[in-house]
Amino acid sequence: MNKHTPATALSIPTVTTGPIAGSRKVYTAPEAAPDLAVPVREIVLSEAAGEPPVPVYDSSGPYTDPAAAIDVEKGLSRTRAAWVAERGGVETYVGREVKPVDNGNVSGQHLARAFPTVHVPVRALPGHPVTQYEWAKAGVITKEMIYVAERENLGRKRMLDRAEAALADGESFGAAIPPFITPEFVRDEIARGRAIIPANINHAELEPMIIGRNFLTKINANIGNSAVTSSVEEEVDKMVWAIRWGADTVMDLSTGRNIHNTREWIIRNAPVPIGTVPIYQALEKVDGDPVKLDWEVYKDTLIEQCEQGVDYFTIHAGVRLAYVPLTADRVTGIVSRGGSIMAKWCLAHHRESFLYERFDEICEIMRRYDVSFSLGDGLRPGSIADANDRAQFAELETLGELTRIAWAKGCQVMIEGPGHVPMHKIKINMDKQLKECGEAPFYTLGPLTTDIAPGYDHITSGIGAAMIGWFGCAMLCYVTPKEHLGLPDRDDVKTGVITYKIAAHAADLAKGHPAAQIRDDAVSRARFEFRWEDQFNLGLDPDTARAFHDETLPKEAHKVAHFCSMCGPKFCSMKITQDVRDYAAGLGDNERAALDGMAKMSETFRAMGEQVYVDADKVKASNRVL
Amino acid sequence: MNKHTPATALSIPTVTTGPIAGSRKVYTAPEAAPDLAVPVREIVLSEAAGEPPVPVYDSSGPYTDPAAAIDVEKGLSRTRAAWVAERGGVETYVGREVKPVDNGNVSGQHLARAFPTVHVPVRALPGHPVTQYEWAKAGVITKEMIYVAERENLGRKRMLDRAEAALADGESFGAAIPPFITPEFVRDEIARGRAIIPANINHAELEPMIIGRNFLTKINANIGNSAVTSSVEEEVDKMVWAIRWGADTVMDLSTGRNIHNTREWIIRNAPVPIGTVPIYQALEKVDGDPVKLDWEVYKDTLIEQCEQGVDYFTIHAGVRLAYVPLTADRVTGIVSRGGSIMAKWCLAHHRESFLYERFDEICEIMRRYDVSFSLGDGLRPGSIADANDRAQFAELETLGELTRIAWAKGCQVMIEGPGHVPMHKIKINMDKQLKECGEAPFYTLGPLTTDIAPGYDHITSGIGAAMIGWFGCAMLCYVTPKEHLGLPDRDDVKTGVITYKIAAHAADLAKGHPAAQIRDDAVSRARFEFRWEDQFNLGLDPDTARAFHDETLPKEAHKVAHFCSMCGPKFCSMKITQDVRDYAAGLGDNERAALDGMAKMSETFRAMGEQVYVDADKVKASNRVL
Repeated sequence: MNKHTPATALSIPTVTTGPIAGSRKVYTAPEAAPDLAVPVREIVLSEAAGEPPVPVYDSSGPYTDPAAAIDVEKGLSRTRAAWVAERGGVETYVGREVKPVDNGNVSGQHLARAFPTVHVPVRALPGHPVTQYEWAKAGVITKEMIYVAERENLGRKRMLDRAEAALADGESFGAAIPPFITPEFVRDEIARGRAIIPANINHAELEPMIIGRNFLTKINANIGNSAVTSSVEEEVDKMVWAIRWGADTVMDLSTGRNIHNTREWIIRNAPVPIGTVPIYQALEKVDGDPVKLDWEVYKDTLIEQCEQGVDYFTIHAGVRLAYVPLTADRVTGIVSRGGSIMAKWCLAHHRESFLYERFDEICEIMRRYDVSFSLGDGLRPGSIADANDRAQFAELETLGELTRIAWAKGCQVMIEGPGHVPMHKIKINMDKQLKECGEAPFYTLGPLTTDIAPGYDHITSGIGAAMIGWFGCAMLCYVTPKEHLGLPDRDDVKTGVITYKIAAHAADLAKGHPAAQIRDDAVSRARFEFRWEDQFNLGLDPDTARAFHDETLPKEAHKVAHFCSMCGPKFCSMKITQDVRDYAAGLGDNERAALDGMAKMSETFRAMGEQVYVDADKVKASNRVL
Repeated sequence: MNKHTPATALSIPTVTTGPIAGSRKVYTAPEAAPDLAVPVREIVLSEAAGEPPVPVYDSSGPYTDPAAAIDVEKGLSRTRAAWVAERGGVETYVGREVKPVDNGNVSGQHLARAFPTVHVPVRALPGHPVTQYEWAKAGVITKEMIYVAERENLGRKRMLDRAEAALADGESFGAAIPPFITPEFVRDEIARGRAIIPANINHAELEPMIIGRNFLTKINANIGNSAVTSSVEEEVDKMVWAIRWGADTVMDLSTGRNIHNTREWIIRNAPVPIGTVPIYQALEKVDGDPVKLDWEVYKDTLIEQCEQGVDYFTIHAGVRLAYVPLTADRVTGIVSRGGSIMAKWCLAHHRESFLYERFDEICEIMRRYDVSFSLGDGLRPGSIADANDRAQFAELETLGELTRIAWAKGCQVMIEGPGHVPMHKIKINMDKQLKECGEAPFYTLGPLTTDIAPGYDHITSGIGAAMIGWFGCAMLCYVTPKEHLGLPDRDDVKTGVITYKIAAHAADLAKGHPAAQIRDDAVSRARFEFRWEDQFNLGLDPDTARAFHDETLPKEAHKVAHFCSMCGPKFCSMKITQDVRDYAAGLGDNERAALDGMAKMSETFRAMGEQVYVDADKVKASNRVL
C-alpha cells in the first residue's frame, strides 16, 4: 500500500491507497442496471489451491483501486448526482452561506482550509418523493436499491451453484434472510421500515449500502476531532483507513473547532455514508452552553449539514423531560453527550425537549435531502449497573413512537442502542427494540459486557456486539481500545474495525447467512493445506497475520513449508491427519472390512449423527431453550 | 514492577516481580484453619473515593508480594508438603531416575541446566485415600478445600453485609452458585464430581484453586517450547508473567528438547496448577514417530511427570479406532496434536487405542499422586465447518464413559472441549457435555466463533469463551493473537490472559455470581467521578490503561481533572450529569411539583420499571426463549 501524497502544499490530507494484500478490486454490473459498477473485492488464491477467487464485501471505495485517480483536493467522483437528477422532483438552489460560527469562529492559522470546490445543493421539490423510503412505498426500485442488492449478493450465486446452502444452519431469531437478494426484496424491506439506505441526495460520492437485519451485519467507525486534539488531515486519513479495513459507515463526531470544514473534506472524499450528531455543532455555536441552545440554532445546523451531504443524523429526541429524574440514582448517570446536553436543557428551562416538540419539523427538513434518522439513545447505560433500567427503556419506547412519526413523514429510520450490558441482558434489549420500534434497524454501541477492562474495551464490547448482531442488530458501532481513556489514533481505528468485522461476521454465521461460511471454509482449507499466503490473504488483516508468522519463521521458504512454528517439522497434527487420510484411502477391501469389524460403533455413530449432530433443527432447538 | 535478576550466572530464569500498580497483597486466615495464609489482592482506592479497597482474586503467587524472597534457583516454598504429610497414607520413595531421553538426548551446551534441587517424591500407600476426590467422598475436608473456599469468597462477605446480593440477577442455566462458599460446599462439589482441585501431592509449591461451574470461571494459559524456538528461561518467565495477569493454571506444552528440565524449573516456581500432555514427551522419546509409541514408554512418562508434580494430564483416551474414519471428510481433519498422534497409532496398528484399553491402569497411576484428568478432545473441530460433527460428539460420549471409570478409581476429572464453533452451536456443546459427562467440569479452548481472522484469534475465541463460560464452562483455555501463526511471546501471553479474564468475568456477571459486579461498579463509580488513577488501578491492566490515557493527556494534573480528551474541558457528559444531579437535588418543593406535573410519565415508568425492566425473572425468561 502507498501513502498517497498530493502535489499541493501542507495541510492537505494524505490517505492510504493501493490494494489490500492478495486482493483485487473488480466491478460487476447488475442485470437490472448494467450502467452501474458495483465494487467487489476478490481474494486471489495461489495456484496450488485450484480454487476460484473468494469474493468479499468491499467498503474501501476507489482508494484500493490502482486504476482510480485519487485526488483528495478534488474529492471522489460524483456519480450519484445523475441518479438523483434522473429521478426528478428535486431542485438546485443557493445554499446557506458558511458562517464563521460554523467553524467555531476561528480565523487565521487556526482555521482549517476550506475544501476547494463548493457544490450547489439539491433538495426535494414540495410534494415530490425523494427518500428511498418514499420511492419504496411508491413501488419504485431506485438505482441505490439495485446497487445494494448486487453488493449484498457476493458469493451467493456461487454458493447456490455448488449447493452449499445446507451449510447455513443458523438460528436467526425471526429474521428472514433470503437465499438471494433481489432489488424487489430490497425495496420491500425499505418500504417495511426494516432496512435503510442512508444516502443524502447531496452525497453524490456515495457507494450505497444497506442496513437491516435481513442483510449482512454492518459496522460503523467513529472519528472526529475534539477541543483537545487532532486535525482535519488526521480525520480524513482515519476515514479512509477505517473503510479500508471494513467500516461500512463512518460517524464524524467532531466537537472542537473547524467542524464545518473538517466535515466537508470528509464527505467529499467518502464513499461510505457519513453520520453526525448535529447537536454537537449546535452546541459549539452557542459557546458550549447547553442552556443557550434553541430550535433556531439547531435547525440552522441541520440545514447546514443536510446541504453538505451528511447521510444520517443522530437525534436524541427521546430524552424527554419526564425521563431525566429516572437517571438520578444511576451509578453513571447520563453518559451520552447528546443525552446529557438535552437533559440539562430540559431541566434548565423546565420544558419538554425541543427536539421532541419539533420532531415533525425535523422530519420535514431531513426528508427533503433524504437524511436518515439514527434516533439517539441519550439515556443509554454507561455501566453494567445501569443496564436495562427504566430510563433506558422509557426512552426506547419513545423512540418507537418517533419511528412511526418519521415513517409517516417519509423518512428512513434506525435506532441507536447501548452501551454497557451484561450478556444475560442483551437479548431482552434486542427483543424490546424490535417490538417497540416496529423492526426498524437497531444500531448499537457494543454493548460492553463488563466495565473492568479499560484499554481493552474493543474486546469487552466485541463480545456483546457479536451476540446482539446474532440476535438481530443490523449495525454495530465499533469501540476502540482507547474507549474511556482517549481519542483513537490510526492503530486504534484499525483494531476497532477488525474487532467489529469479527463480531459482524460471527453474527452472520450464527444467523445462517447463506454465503457467510464461504470465507471461513476457504481459510480453513488454506490452513489445512499449509497454503500460508492464502491463509494470510483470506483473513481480515493479511498484513498482521503475515507479520506474526514471520516473527517466528521469517524465511520465505517456510511459507510454503508443510509445518509451522508451533510444532515444528517433525511433529505436525495437520501432516499426520493427511497421513491418516492417505492411509484410509489406501485401505484394501479386506482391511477396510477388518477395520469396520473392529469399529461397529462407527456406523452407529454415522446413523446417530444424521439424527442428532448435524441436524439444523436440533441446533436451533438448543438455542430456543436457552 | 521489577525484572528480578538472581545473583548467579547466565541461563537462570529472570522473572517479573513487584506489585501490580495500585494493588497490595494481603493474606487472610480461614476460620476453619487459621494457620493457612490465603492470598488476596486488594486494589487501594484514592482518598477521594471514600471507599474500602476492592478485593480481587489473586493468582500471581509470591511474585507480587514485596515481602517475599524470590529465588528462582531455589523455587517457591513447599508449604503444602506438610499438609500432605499430616493427612498420612503416603510414602516417600526413591523416584525414577532422570534419563537422557527425558530431555531429548541432548547434551553439552544444548542441554538445559537441571534444577539445582532434587525433591524426593511421595505417593499414596496402597489402600489409602489420597486424592481430593477420595477425601471428599470420605466426608473429609482437606486444607486444600478450606483454602479454596476462602479464596473464592473474595468480596462476598462485604457484599452480603451491604445487601448488594440483589445485583446478582443473572441466568446461570442450572448452575447452583451459593451466596457464600463454605469448605463443606467445596467438599460436596468435589465429591459430586462437579469440581476439581488439581493438586499433585508432589507439587508442594501450589496455592490450591478450584475448577467447577459453581465457582469463579477460571482461565488457563499455554506456554512451552517447541523444536523450532524458545528456551527454559523464556518459559519460566512466561509462566510468572501469565499468572501475574490472571492465569489460574498454566499448561506446559513443550514439544522439543529439554522437556524434563524445562518442566522442572516451571513446577518448582509455580504457585498455580501445571498441566501437561504426556504424549508429547512420550513421542519425543520414540523419535517423533507415533507408530513407535507403546504403553511402556507412555507409562514411564506418566510416572516421570507424576513424580515431578504435574497437576493435571491431558489424556486423549477418547480417540477410539472406530472414530478415526469419521474425520476423513472434514475440512480440517484432526487438529489436536494428541488426537492426531493417537489416530495415526490406531490406524497403523489396526488396534484400539492403548490409552483407552489401559485406562484403568492410567487411573491407578494418577490416583497415587492425585493428578487430575483433563480428558482430551482429540477430535475437536479445527474449523467452523467441522463444528459439532459426529466425530466430535462420538468422542465426547466416550469421555463420559471414561469419566465414570476415573471417578470409580478415585480420580478427579475435567473434560476438554473445542475449538472452532459458531455462536449458534455453542450451547448444544455445553449442554451435551454436562449430560454426557455427569457435570464434570468443562474446559474449552475458546471456542473460536469464526475462522477468518488470523492474528486476532484471541478475539474470535474470546467471544465464544465468554458465551460458553456463561453457559456453564468451568475453565477457559486462552488463545493468543499468534494462534495458527506462531508461538506466543510475552506480549501475546499478556494479551491472551487479559482477553480471557474479560471473558471469564463477563461469564461470571451473566451467571449472576454474587460478588462479580462489585469490581464493575467500583470502576464505574471511579469513571463517573473522574478518579482516573482509581479507574486505571481497578482495571485488569492498569499499565495499559494509564499509558493509553497519557498518550493524549500526559500531564499529571489531567489525571485529577474533571474532563478527558474525548470531549475536552468545556463539554463533558459526565460533568453535565453531575450538574443535572445537583440541579435536581436543589429543586424546591414547588419546582419539584411543577416538574412532576409536567412529567407524570415518570411515575408511570417507575411503576412499570418494577414490573418489567429490572425484574430478574423477566431477564431470565428472555434468555430462556432464545
